[in-house]
Amino acid sequence: MSVLNFEIKKELPGKLGRVGILKTPHGEIETPAFVVVGTKATVKALSPEQVKTLGTQVVLANTYHLYLQPQDELIKKAGGLHKFMNWSGPTMTDSGGFQVFSLGAAFGDSVSKIALGIDDSNNQRPKNGESLAKVDEEGVTFKSHLDGSSHRFTPEKSIEIQHNIGADMIFAFDECTSPKASYEYQKEALDRTHRWAKRSLDAHLGNKEASSKQALFGIVQGGRFQDLREESARVISGIDFDGFGIGGSFDKEDMDTAVGWVNNILPKEKPRHLLGIGEPRDLFGGIENGVDLFDCVAPTRIARNGTLQTENGSMNLLNAKFVSDFSPVEEGCQCYTCQNYTRAYLSHLFRAKEMFGSTLASIHNLYFTVNLVKKIRQSILDDNFFEFKEEFLGKYYKEK
Amino acid sequence: MSVLNFEIKKELPGKLGRVGILKTPHGEIETPAFVVVGTKATVKALSPEQVKTLGTQVVLANTYHLYLQPQDELIKKAGGLHKFMNWSGPTMTDSGGFQVFSLGAAFGDSVSKIALGIDDSNNQRPKNGESLAKVDEEGVTFKSHLDGSSHRFTPEKSIEIQHNIGADMIFAFDECTSPKASYEYQKEALDRTHRWAKRSLDAHLGNKEASSKQALFGIVQGGRFQDLREESARVISGIDFDGFGIGGSFDKEDMDTAVGWVNNILPKEKPRHLLGIGEPRDLFGGIENGVDLFDCVAPTRIARNGTLQTENGSMNLLNAKFVSDFSPVEEGCQCYTCQNYTRAYLSHLFRAKEMFGSTLASIHNLYFTVNLVKKIRQSILDDNFFEFKEEFLGKYYKEK
Repeated sequence: MSVLNFEIKKELPGKLGRVGILKTPHGEIETPAFVVVGTKATVKALSPEQVKTLGTQVVLANTYHLYLQPQDELIKKAGGLHKFMNWSGPTMTDSGGFQVFSLGAAFGDSVSKIALGIDDSNNQRPKNGESLAKVDEEGVTFKSHLDGSSHRFTPEKSIEIQHNIGADMIFAFDECTSPKASYEYQKEALDRTHRWAKRSLDAHLGNKEASSKQALFGIVQGGRFQDLREESARVISGIDFDGFGIGGSFDKEDMDTAVGWVNNILPKEKPRHLLGIGEPRDLFGGIENGVDLFDCVAPTRIARNGTLQTENGSMNLLNAKFVSDFSPVEEGCQCYTCQNYTRAYLSHLFRAKEMFGSTLASIHNLYFTVNLVKKIRQSILDDNFFEFKEEFLGKYYKEK
Repeated sequence: MSVLNFEIKKELPGKLGRVGILKTPHGEIETPAFVVVGTKATVKALSPEQVKTLGTQVVLANTYHLYLQPQDELIKKAGGLHKFMNWSGPTMTDSGGFQVFSLGAAFGDSVSKIALGIDDSNNQRPKNGESLAKVDEEGVTFKSHLDGSSHRFTPEKSIEIQHNIGADMIFAFDECTSPKASYEYQKEALDRTHRWAKRSLDAHLGNKEASSKQALFGIVQGGRFQDLREESARVISGIDFDGFGIGGSFDKEDMDTAVGWVNNILPKEKPRHLLGIGEPRDLFGGIENGVDLFDCVAPTRIARNGTLQTENGSMNLLNAKFVSDFSPVEEGCQCYTCQNYTRAYLSHLFRAKEMFGSTLASIHNLYFTVNLVKKIRQSILDDNFFEFKEEFLGKYYKEK
């Protein structure tokens, strides 16, 4: 029996999309939902109360970063992630696979997730293209981006770390291939990822205490190839995971289609998480194609650079025209930032390099994305998903 | 009639100290009180709600910084400081005098306020000792630390800026001399400051609308010389200010005595603000000698470097021993940080250079100082000020 309970409340007619409720040991998540990223056990620039107030239902921390610092054993001693970071709601950790490979194998490929702005660590690209990760059948040896020290992740090690961290939902260890890798390499890596998936589940079930409190998601890979994606979905479906992640790279324009290939095969009754994706068009496309959960660092990363998202697209607050603009970031927005501050004030904070600028911008952008997913959810319940999608995306991408 | 109402509730027998209530257009302040500094219309790393929750009664912003950016006319257009920064409680601005001179005339003197860690701008010391401020009878010409552009403050200009910013309590424009200046220069500067005090009041009363909503404090200067301090107190007392500031430099060890010289002369019925002072021993000494208000950037500045204050003195969280210390910063402390986070978590945040570390540390240190002044106030009400002073300072400075 899973530690999760997932109930589908309504489906999107003729499509794979659905509205559900996912019950976790730390509370319910109304799905589809956007998962807020707190890479190093903190959502950058925000207090947990600010994270909660903006409507966040679930927070995802990164295994790779926490393993290196403060180290997972320390988080275990602290009583686990929830207690350590003072977040009482549902949590997830990723497997560390993506970070391990984005440090190494995928380096230099312009279409890698790093290039797409999806990865959260600013400081992890090696200086001269040298690969920092070496993969073999057993696992991956890699170097820390912090101090160059050597480390090794295996499926068993990733699960052990994630047990120590103690999030409600954790992920199987996978190989995240370069989007430019050949079909042959993708196939080889995929087979290995499938073997690692089984080993991850074995390691998870081998720890009775942890597996009685934490749910394990398997990860579907396969790059941009339909046959590999479908094969991966079939193999991973055959392993008794509590839910599924869809990882790796896609052709940006075909992401919806690729997600559909996978979700046509994955068992309907379990939750699905599209890893590292959060652009409005991808949220609509993912949900239409059966995704329940998304995470992405982009909303907070661009916020810290002064870029704010609105229904009419995004804008940079450092633009001179905002210096004396006393309107809120977005007219009608119900977030804390828009209810209490002007563009002029945010402009001042960014120009003065005051931390509170990052706080206010992050609150707005996270509210924007979290709330967009909530509105999409509501549109399915109200039978007007397609109208809402057309209207929203038409406005958001108007000038692009 | 003053826009302030100051009522003394109790006096410290045999001393100048008193407990009072200061009514301002934006609410009451129980005095003595520590004023929290929000230099650029934001208390660094904190939301106004966090500032309020830690017990802050009043916030002080800096005229010099806000004049340069975002500029005082913009704050006026925004509806004033309260609305601009979303702080509904009482506010103050300083006159800009201290910053103008700390950029110029006082540069290079090791005992200047900059050296004492009292000034809040990290970036304002000229590179090569060149004085950036030139004083004459009418005012001061200085260069911006931001872009080197030339500016001029006169008493009238300082008041105009402070009217535009719109704080409840504002200060007369004064010359802040170098602590190393000769007696002769100090005397010359003091006489000029007294003439500027009268001009400041004239400029204030000349704006009927502003002076019906804002209170003006005169500033007593005189450096470390008893006769000049007493002369200044007499002259400034003779001008119809709503309250008084005590500014400039002191011999650190004799600050209490010097404050006593001044407060023995200042009219008892008006509030007194000791500018830029916030060390525990100076808070006790100042209160004992009749000070009602203090402000200081030290609590938040040291917090951002990981230095936390406790009743047993201060400690730096970057020390290795805190990495796995799961106790709160201070056992028994009721602040948000200590109620919800461990030293280990703060240590992690500082090592990971996460902004939330500065937020949590600032909350703790401000709570520590704000609450210390509240406890001193209570000790006067409870007739045990001297016992509390001896006990507290004995513990705090035990190892120093």
